[in-house]
Amino acid sequence: MYRRQTRPQRYKLLLAYDGSAYAGWQVQPNQRTVQGELEAALRHLAGAPVKLHGSGRTDRGVHAIGQIAHCDLPFILPAANLRRALNAILPANIRIRQARMAAADFHARRDAVGKEYRYYIWNGEVISPFLRLYRTHVRQLLNLRAMRRAAALLVGRRDFAAFTANPNRKVASTRRRLRLLTVSRQGPEIVIRAQSDGFLYKMVRSLAGFLIRVGEGAVPPEETRRILRSRTRTARVPSAPPQGLFLWRVWYPAPTRATVRRSS
Amino acid sequence: MYRRQTRPQRYKLLLAYDGSAYAGWQVQPNQRTVQGELEAALRHLAGAPVKLHGSGRTDRGVHAIGQIAHCDLPFILPAANLRRALNAILPANIRIRQARMAAADFHARRDAVGKEYRYYIWNGEVISPFLRLYRTHVRQLLNLRAMRRAAALLVGRRDFAAFTANPNRKVASTRRRLRLLTVSRQGPEIVIRAQSDGFLYKMVRSLAGFLIRVGEGAVPPEETRRILRSRTRTARVPSAPPQGLFLWRVWYPAPTRATVRRSS
Repeated sequence: MYRRQTRPQRYKLLLAYDGSAYAGWQVQPNQRTVQGELEAALRHLAGAPVKLHGSGRTDRGVHAIGQIAHCDLPFILPAANLRRALNAILPANIRIRQARMAAADFHARRDAVGKEYRYYIWNGEVISPFLRLYRTHVRQLLNLRAMRRAAALLVGRRDFAAFTANPNRKVASTRRRLRLLTVSRQGPEIVIRAQSDGFLYKMVRSLAGFLIRVGEGAVPPEETRRILRSRTRTARVPSAPPQGLFLWRVWYPAPTRATVRRSS
Repeated sequence: MYRRQTRPQRYKLLLAYDGSAYAGWQVQPNQRTVQGELEAALRHLAGAPVKLHGSGRTDRGVHAIGQIAHCDLPFILPAANLRRALNAILPANIRIRQARMAAADFHARRDAVGKEYRYYIWNGEVISPFLRLYRTHVRQLLNLRAMRRAAALLVGRRDFAAFTANPNRKVASTRRRLRLLTVSRQGPEIVIRAQSDGFLYKMVRSLAGFLIRVGEGAVPPEETRRILRSRTRTARVPSAPPQGLFLWRVWYPAPTRATVRRSS
């Protein structure tokens, strides 16, 4: 079924997980984490410790539909078999959607050129019991027009210092390019889509928390420019709860011919 | 907010619940049940035991989108307030979607004239981790055409003795009118809809289990007539697992003028 080889083979994994039961992505002592479950499954398969690299961390309670990770395994296994073997070991709240052999220098975090997150709100009196762990419940009818006006003022290359949770973190710059920020409604559900080449810590939950405040009428959308300019986080920008947030997609550049050659 | 009154007021409740954590609808000693949780919440509100009558039982692990129940309360409370008060007490996996005052002789079980159940199948290699408790996972690609041929042979007024789990149960007759039985696919999801004026015990799960066997090619659809005629349950009619099943809707006759008058 597989053959041992001297040089390890790199694999790229497309993952979905229900973050409800996890203390986030990253391995932490005495905590159940998504990375921890995946590394345990990989270790079981490889018979030796395997380090898994995600495209980025997700916080406690945050979900993923399209997380990407890579790892090296000491054997070559057809991708579909690797997927099946891992899914048979993993708990049902983590699924490998796809496994692929990757070039030896592919890196899930460093090579990522963009991400999309989606934030889901249940905006109605009674939330569906089937979505209670996957939506943030806001009873008050939100003003979508106001939310969209504010969202339009946030799109572009800007300093998002006012929209990150911990400005003391050492980041070279708080400037980011927000490529897309849309708000749409379908029945009682509102979805906020956010795309960027890179997000700051808790940036999407801050954007969602701010847009909810705007939708409630607590902050006028015209305040958006002033908040951006202030570069200071205030109560007008709360962090929306984690259970509404999904890491939706991670983009990578199309592999070059050289990369493909190296992988074979 | 409400006034006590000498004669109790009857209420009709529209309920949704995630059955995953419950030993079914009906109160049982030392078990968490949906009826048990609802009666505890009603008791809390009324300050005295309240008996809740459902349109019918659902088994362990079965869900509901549109269960109907009735109860009598010793006060008149605007329906929206009753809903809000109950939802504030109930666990998040049970929701009152709607509460209404009902005529004093309305009976959720006896007055029901029909029901719809839906059975959901995830028919693909990797099931979404967000639907793991709400879908039955069938990896093998099912043959929808065969399933539909078998379904068409089941619709109508027939003896469903071969499609009920416990033929020793004392039921006056195993004849039922199956008004609708359809199979449709959307992406990796298959839904079986079943409508009847009355279902036998485990009848929907037996129909779903049989249709899955037909879809897998294990039973030819032409066998359907012979199985009906046999009036005997065999391995060709397994019970499909509970987590794919949803009580979708319960029908009642439109209230007559007399009934409406009595309720005011």
